[in-house]
Amino acid sequence: MSSLLTSATAIIFAAAVVALLWALIQFTIISKIPVQSGGGSGEQEGLISSGDDQAVSARLKEIYTAIYEGAESFLKAEYTVCFWFVIAFAILILVLVSWGTGWDMARGSMTAISFLLGAFTSMASGYLGMKVAVYSNVRTTVSAQKPGWTECFNTAFRAGAVMGFALCGLGIFMLYGTMLVFKLHYPQPDEWIFLTESITGYGLGGSVIAMFGRVGGGIYTKAADVGADLVGKVVHGIPEDDPRNPATIADNVGDNVGDVAGMGSDLFGSFAESTCAALVIGSSIGLSGGWDAMVFPVIVSGVGVFVCLLCSFIATNIWTVKKEADVEMALKVQLISTTIVMIPAVYFAAIFYLPASFELHSTIGNTILHLSPLKATICVAMGAVGGLTIGLITEYYTSHSYQPVREVAASCKTGAATNMIYGIALGFKSAIIPVIVLALVIYFSFATCDMYGVALAAIGFLSNLATGLTIDVYGPVCDNAGGIAEMAELHPSVREKTDALDAAGNTTAAIGKGFAIGSAALVSLALFGAFVTRIRHSSDDKLFAAGVNMLEPVTFAFLIIGGMIPFAFAALTMKSVGTAAMEMVLEVQRQFDEKPHLLDENPTERPDYDACIAISTQASLKEMVPPGAMVIFTPLLTGILFGVTAVSGLLVGALVASVQLAISMSNSGGAWDNAKKYIEKQPADSELKGKGSDIHKAAVVGDTVGDPFKDTSGPALNIVMKLMAVLSLVFADTFYAINSGTGVFKMA
Amino acid sequence: MSSLLTSATAIIFAAAVVALLWALIQFTIISKIPVQSGGGSGEQEGLISSGDDQAVSARLKEIYTAIYEGAESFLKAEYTVCFWFVIAFAILILVLVSWGTGWDMARGSMTAISFLLGAFTSMASGYLGMKVAVYSNVRTTVSAQKPGWTECFNTAFRAGAVMGFALCGLGIFMLYGTMLVFKLHYPQPDEWIFLTESITGYGLGGSVIAMFGRVGGGIYTKAADVGADLVGKVVHGIPEDDPRNPATIADNVGDNVGDVAGMGSDLFGSFAESTCAALVIGSSIGLSGGWDAMVFPVIVSGVGVFVCLLCSFIATNIWTVKKEADVEMALKVQLISTTIVMIPAVYFAAIFYLPASFELHSTIGNTILHLSPLKATICVAMGAVGGLTIGLITEYYTSHSYQPVREVAASCKTGAATNMIYGIALGFKSAIIPVIVLALVIYFSFATCDMYGVALAAIGFLSNLATGLTIDVYGPVCDNAGGIAEMAELHPSVREKTDALDAAGNTTAAIGKGFAIGSAALVSLALFGAFVTRIRHSSDDKLFAAGVNMLEPVTFAFLIIGGMIPFAFAALTMKSVGTAAMEMVLEVQRQFDEKPHLLDENPTERPDYDACIAISTQASLKEMVPPGAMVIFTPLLTGILFGVTAVSGLLVGALVASVQLAISMSNSGGAWDNAKKYIEKQPADSELKGKGSDIHKAAVVGDTVGDPFKDTSGPALNIVMKLMAVLSLVFADTFYAINSGTGVFKMA
Repeated sequence: MSSLLTSATAIIFAAAVVALLWALIQFTIISKIPVQSGGGSGEQEGLISSGDDQAVSARLKEIYTAIYEGAESFLKAEYTVCFWFVIAFAILILVLVSWGTGWDMARGSMTAISFLLGAFTSMASGYLGMKVAVYSNVRTTVSAQKPGWTECFNTAFRAGAVMGFALCGLGIFMLYGTMLVFKLHYPQPDEWIFLTESITGYGLGGSVIAMFGRVGGGIYTKAADVGADLVGKVVHGIPEDDPRNPATIADNVGDNVGDVAGMGSDLFGSFAESTCAALVIGSSIGLSGGWDAMVFPVIVSGVGVFVCLLCSFIATNIWTVKKEADVEMALKVQLISTTIVMIPAVYFAAIFYLPASFELHSTIGNTILHLSPLKATICVAMGAVGGLTIGLITEYYTSHSYQPVREVAASCKTGAATNMIYGIALGFKSAIIPVIVLALVIYFSFATCDMYGVALAAIGFLSNLATGLTIDVYGPVCDNAGGIAEMAELHPSVREKTDALDAAGNTTAAIGKGFAIGSAALVSLALFGAFVTRIRHSSDDKLFAAGVNMLEPVTFAFLIIGGMIPFAFAALTMKSVGTAAMEMVLEVQRQFDEKPHLLDENPTERPDYDACIAISTQASLKEMVPPGAMVIFTPLLTGILFGVTAVSGLLVGALVASVQLAISMSNSGGAWDNAKKYIEKQPADSELKGKGSDIHKAAVVGDTVGDPFKDTSGPALNIVMKLMAVLSLVFADTFYAINSGTGVFKMA
Repeated sequence: MSSLLTSATAIIFAAAVVALLWALIQFTIISKIPVQSGGGSGEQEGLISSGDDQAVSARLKEIYTAIYEGAESFLKAEYTVCFWFVIAFAILILVLVSWGTGWDMARGSMTAISFLLGAFTSMASGYLGMKVAVYSNVRTTVSAQKPGWTECFNTAFRAGAVMGFALCGLGIFMLYGTMLVFKLHYPQPDEWIFLTESITGYGLGGSVIAMFGRVGGGIYTKAADVGADLVGKVVHGIPEDDPRNPATIADNVGDNVGDVAGMGSDLFGSFAESTCAALVIGSSIGLSGGWDAMVFPVIVSGVGVFVCLLCSFIATNIWTVKKEADVEMALKVQLISTTIVMIPAVYFAAIFYLPASFELHSTIGNTILHLSPLKATICVAMGAVGGLTIGLITEYYTSHSYQPVREVAASCKTGAATNMIYGIALGFKSAIIPVIVLALVIYFSFATCDMYGVALAAIGFLSNLATGLTIDVYGPVCDNAGGIAEMAELHPSVREKTDALDAAGNTTAAIGKGFAIGSAALVSLALFGAFVTRIRHSSDDKLFAAGVNMLEPVTFAFLIIGGMIPFAFAALTMKSVGTAAMEMVLEVQRQFDEKPHLLDENPTERPDYDACIAISTQASLKEMVPPGAMVIFTPLLTGILFGVTAVSGLLVGALVASVQLAISMSNSGGAWDNAKKYIEKQPADSELKGKGSDIHKAAVVGDTVGDPFKDTSGPALNIVMKLMAVLSLVFADTFYAINSGTGVFKMA
């Protein structure tokens, strides 16, 4: 009994339960805030609740309901598409994996089941995140009416925490629970390789939903956002959150379904894939180290939950946010403190759960490596520190506190064209250091623990996932709170407060993106390593015997095709945003034409918000299919038709190009956004002339182009590389079953 | 004697002499056109030489002289920098290669000498091209005054032919001459491997100058061009070629030093490298097939000269250009006809000079392949047809006759931001088919003749180089002729005629860029293959014994670093253009501020053209160094510090990312340019509103951003991948000499 209490199962389930409970507690705290206007922003104005507070409260509820209904109906529509796709794809998995393993129906069905579980958990995470965010947005607005910064910051931060901890708890619980069930079928350590291979379906499921969630949500939110931005330019000079702008509710819905639900699914996918990759590569550890040693990657995630929970008190209770300047520091302290505390915590877990020495079968060459808890910890730590480094570099390139963004802002003086040139150059340049950091992490983690080290480093990147998610959700919540304040026509000081909260969130969100991209690269490499290992496990022949030769003509041909996939993907998604945004502009124009009094000071007509929501919904549902299908079916067809050497080239090419493009696009977009914000903060008589000037207009062009860069194409490229890799891993046996892995065309 | 006449030497030298003579003949024809205004554009206006023709002629001569002096002084300054760099680098080669080959001073000095010859030939080509272009620009303007289209088209076309044939003749003559001299030292077939390895210095020399020429020239021309464009936006609404615009002469100089001299050096580099790659990989052919068989790649280039010469009569004499619509067709017929005629011509050369069966030592595995003339021809033909296909796809994506560019034009209706999004998406998307074509060519040419097949395919891409160059030079000549017409204030119909000639040139130049990028990818792959072969030749140990393993941690780490290089390079070059353009704008603004009468209808003050020329010159000389140094020293230091497995990753990563980025950037730029031209052609009451409208202004932003995309960064990325590969090949022995190729740090 005591051994059960100290077992991996105990700590993992404890972490899952604690995470879920903690999410519930945070939610309860938020729910105590009534949706009731407290009148102006008392502090600055000295106002007491005024007589029309009731009207304002009603308006707040109305807006909240409109956003909620829009988000709910979109997610329902999106998840309906996903549901049928997932069912169909599960059947495909069942058939192809069973066939590929010589009609081993157990493996086929276990892979299909874990795929379904991964997909449904991902959908549940996204849905939950959206609900919490919508629920909290309006409460953040209300909190911002009250004096001081602590309450409104804490509300938004707690909203993030609900999502962050709930997702981690749910993810760990489902994954580990499934593993325990599968263990009933595969009780012996030498069968655990099949167990871990079946569980990769979980990663694939999470990843498929992440793809649709990111792309669908990303198109939705940016179509609305770009559309709303352009309306002001093209039609009339009204700001994007003006309640008279018919696209405004769609824009706010977009923040919740794209930046919250989509992003949640994305990070859930990262978590699931990195864990699955480490489990597959490390399955041989079970032979010498036992179950607890093998599930060490899950333990790390569990430890992460405790660390993140403890560190979250720093923000909400110890060094509370008392003034504007505290906000950014509070969030940054979260990221840095969790990273620092994580390293000793993981080390203690490692010496507790891992044997002093254990064996790992190497990916390349049939050697056996002897690992130790220290070595495993070093790999996780390299990932965690590497992630933080990349995050801080990302911040340097995207925050207007530093030179690069200010240069971009200055380039607006000569117009939109130089702004474009500088912004794109900044994005390209910002890839240099992160890529070198990644290369170092890859080299040294591999040198320490072979490909298992790379997988552990990926887990290290994501070890403070709960905190990362908290901060990622915090941003859109503040953004939306500001939108609601504007729409409900609250006192401008409320908007100013939420804007300040949001600005800090933008910077830390950029850091989070750095983490996400870095981890995606490592996860993809680890999955690729697992793919090669699995092919070699499947047979005794010479395929991949000496690694994967780049000079094979098939490999090389697919290497450049793989390199093309991210570009094609980015093209499809960007153009979808552009097309949908143009439709949005036309719809808004139509409304203004048909309702001439919409723009009056006290409008007698009301905009048709639903028409704009319908455009975003339809555009994203229609447009998410081609890029999603491309990413899913390219590796599948390549493996079936051209074999595993072709798949190797494809995966590596896609990985190499995706990393650069994802970093570049995210950072260009972030820099343009913040360059615009920087200009807006300048007074009209300064060199940059401030809001409304020609310089500002040039900056707006950059911001608009940056929207799909940073919120649609860029982050979705992470999923491109991971999804292709995990999919190839799931179907590895199937590919191998076709002419010994040379495909239908028998490519040598 | 008869055997000497039928030998490879005979046909190669014959081709070189014919090419040079033909260039001389074309030049003589052009030089018979006096620089004398013929008054208006007689045809349309029925004007006879008017009284002020003499004044106009004087003005023409003045402008011509100003452009000539600007170009001459820039090239002198640029080549002075290059000269000292080349001398220093030749010493480095001498030392490092001699040391790497165990102080074999012969190989070190032969490599250094061929490096110097390659570099000086490249500079000579660039200088010659510039001279011919400047000489011909004004004569094209004068010809455009005369009735009909034939004369002015032919003048510009012949100017292109001077450059095209002179460069081919010179290149072939110098390369083959050097080989014959080296043969005196290495008379035996089993020593020819050293001969061919030494001759790769020629490719490196050409490539280094190409890098500086492309980057320096590219920054020069686009700083001036973008600056001139922006002046109108920022300062006053004057068009870019208006003589009152002080940046106008710099802009015209730029066309000659960037688009002619830089591009000439670039293509000379491609020719030199592809030939060297094929010679190194095919050096073992000499053992069974003899000298003539080994120099088959040079023979193909020689055959190309004859084919291009014959086909050029189609344009100038058979189907002459009689109306505007004929222009584009005439140029396209050139490209298509040379490709078609080339295939049987190469086949005849192959059966004449190659033995019916000959042996090639394979790159991977120590096998010996049996090749035949037919197989060799198939590889060349695949390259030629692949090049044409990529070219035509490029045309589809960049010509406003087709859907993609028109979509970009339509996106300008909602402003510059959607124009950007659509244009970038178009560029990314346009990589799909070219990359698939490249993958097919790589796979099948490799399957036919191993890595030698890839090298032959690269030569196939460039086999109609003389024609490609002719068309590439034709474009800037027409562009400049139009600029001169505007500056000399000739009748607007002259400008209209040169614009029409230029528009057709833009489209075919896009095709030429497709050829260049495709060939660069194949050349780089072939050079990489040669690098691996050379390492394996150097020793009996196991390095690369089973190819190049992507799963080696060092290789993989450098794979992503390699993928980052093109992005970093593009960032540096784009930003250089942006910075220099902003300086240009400030200078022009200063002149307008200090000389208030500059903009009068009949200005009493004259702009200071030289100040603008100085800005472009200094900017490009200063800014060409960092990107050039990065590309040259990254592989050198990687090889020395981290060894050959690191270099392998670096080269392949750079190749994969460069191909996509080069295609994307070139095509986005071309599409924006032509979208703007398309809008300009629309009447003011049409949907796109035509010149001067807001839609047009949005299109101008795209065109301006596209300038560095398509004329600085995009095309220079070709050189990035080739230069890194050829450099690694030249220093392969040196790398290997350091700890058996594991570098200073002894990376496993």
